[in-house]
Amino acid sequence: MTNAVDVALMIDLLGVFFFAVSGSLLAARKGFDLVGSLLLASLAGLGGGVARDLIIDTVPAAFSNPAYLIPPVLATLLVYFLFSGVERVSNLLVVFDAAGLGLFCITGTIKALEFGLHPVAGILLGVTTAVGGGLLRDVVANEVPQLFDPRDIYALPAMLGAGLTALLVGTGWFNVVTGAVVATLVFALRVLAWRFSWRAPLAVLGWKRSGTA
Amino acid sequence: MTNAVDVALMIDLLGVFFFAVSGSLLAARKGFDLVGSLLLASLAGLGGGVARDLIIDTVPAAFSNPAYLIPPVLATLLVYFLFSGVERVSNLLVVFDAAGLGLFCITGTIKALEFGLHPVAGILLGVTTAVGGGLLRDVVANEVPQLFDPRDIYALPAMLGAGLTALLVGTGWFNVVTGAVVATLVFALRVLAWRFSWRAPLAVLGWKRSGTA
Amino acid sequence: MTNAVDVALMIDLLGVFFFAVSGSLLAARKGFDLVGSLLLASLAGLGGGVARDLIIDTVPAAFSNPAYLIPPVLATLLVYFLFSGVERVSNLLVVFDAAGLGLFCITGTIKALEFGLHPVAGILLGVTTAVGGGLLRDVVANEVPQLFDPRDIYALPAMLGAGLTALLVGTGWFNVVTGAVVATLVFALRVLAWRFSWRAPLAVLGWKRSGTA
Repeated sequence: MTNAVDVALMIDLLGVFFFAVSGSLLAARKGFDLVGSLLLASLAGLGGGVARDLIIDTVPAAFSNPAYLIPPVLATLLVYFLFSGVERVSNLLVVFDAAGLGLFCITGTIKALEFGLHPVAGILLGVTTAVGGGLLRDVVANEVPQLFDPRDIYALPAMLGAGLTALLVGTGWFNVVTGAVVATLVFALRVLAWRFSWRAPLAVLGWKRSGTA
Repeated sequence: MTNAVDVALMIDLLGVFFFAVSGSLLAARKGFDLVGSLLLASLAGLGGGVARDLIIDTVPAAFSNPAYLIPPVLATLLVYFLFSGVERVSNLLVVFDAAGLGLFCITGTIKALEFGLHPVAGILLGVTTAVGGGLLRDVVANEVPQLFDPRDIYALPAMLGAGLTALLVGTGWFNVVTGAVVATLVFALRVLAWRFSWRAPLAVLGWKRSGTA
Repeated sequence: MTNAVDVALMIDLLGVFFFAVSGSLLAARKGFDLVGSLLLASLAGLGGGVARDLIIDTVPAAFSNPAYLIPPVLATLLVYFLFSGVERVSNLLVVFDAAGLGLFCITGTIKALEFGLHPVAGILLGVTTAVGGGLLRDVVANEVPQLFDPRDIYALPAMLGAGLTALLVGTGWFNVVTGAVVATLVFALRVLAWRFSWRAPLAVLGWKRSGTA
């Protein structure tokens, strides 16, 4: 299990970084300043994990381990110095968000199972962790969340990833390799769904889509 | 007290269902897809209770008892298959929301009192539980929350219901019958306030209402 | 340390009042009614502290001490009876918000340090407490948060105040006088930044500001 814990921590910090970059990119698109970029990076990167840790009733990792503050700072600086073209903001945002999604649905599920939640609750918490940071990011920036955008599929890959993780942990097959496969699968599904506009049925049978979201 | 606990659980699951339907109906109105409908149903149905349980420092019921996941799934399917007319979305949304409000102001207050909070805190937490799920639902869907809509009264019935519940529990008169009376009263007040545009005074003495919210 | 705790409680209640007034003023500007004013005052005044207490895993002060409910009621009545001119809403809102910011970055940091968090986490939680209530206030009222408004500096003064507080507590120099100096400094910096449009660099190097936020 120690191995799984180490993988979870490593993946967790990387996931924080990916979501943090998505936060800084949204800050750039909304015309926020450097401080707003850092705050939105922190909220996107740490929000899902803080929600997860509050629910399983432990002090949030972001507040007990200062290492969690490094990814948002790196993300803010990266976007500040390396980013230039305005036309690529939205695309990059989706890609980094998808990378975070792929990692957090795994780490959220694992941490929940380690705290003794049953598998169904573990999957629910994994999905909450995965979509929580991005949801907070979009809500505080006053956007309709990507999570609810009916033009492509967002939550389904995270649900699949959390379910596979619970299955792998339950069968004892979870390790670095299988974890990487799940993360890659979730990432690929999300990016492909966005690129090719894979869609789920609308909320009401028989209703037609309007032209835009 | 066991009786009160059983009533609370039954009412709680029913309240989750009512709010979940309101979430799926809002998802329909916003043009979200089926997955977004399930997510908004879950957030509306479970959000208030999760907030309540975080505040009284217990693992949220939604994450310890898988039964809480059934009402959002049912609500999503119900809206998907049975719903048809677009003109009735807003009306039905208010009615289901009112039903959830009537039940959650009771269960929230009871759970708070059972955890030893004093009556004032119990009432505050009951109101938080009752309005929390609907507030989260409207906020993540990027709407001005019903809670703050000055065209009718929303929170007052919930405050009254939470206060009556605290009184009934304190005097030992809380049971299935008195609980049902309180829930019906809150539901009726909310629906009547909406139907007949009962209003509270504006936030500033002497200011006039604009034409719309 | 008892002295520091007393100072923290006094400052905390005063901070709740300042943020509560900002909430009622925003409710006035948005055309909400008296109940919405009370709710937005409560959310703005108590939201940051509740988030802080959830993170350090204690029952939120607002739910264990009924005294915390008095400031929102006072703020709602104050705005209802004493407020008249529409043109001053935005200005007063910023001033009261700044006063709350100055106090909460101190009380949040102190409470975190008392619960044994390390200084970096204490500063992070102090900033979270200071900006949390105002963020929730703006988000539920469906506004782009003041926190992210690139036309002036908002979070930097709070970060400075939380950092100075951690330094003063760590060196044993924190007391009523030094606390008051820090609060005044944060308040003054925030109000001056707003009055004279002090700005931070944008999120991306070389991008130009658009005319408005």
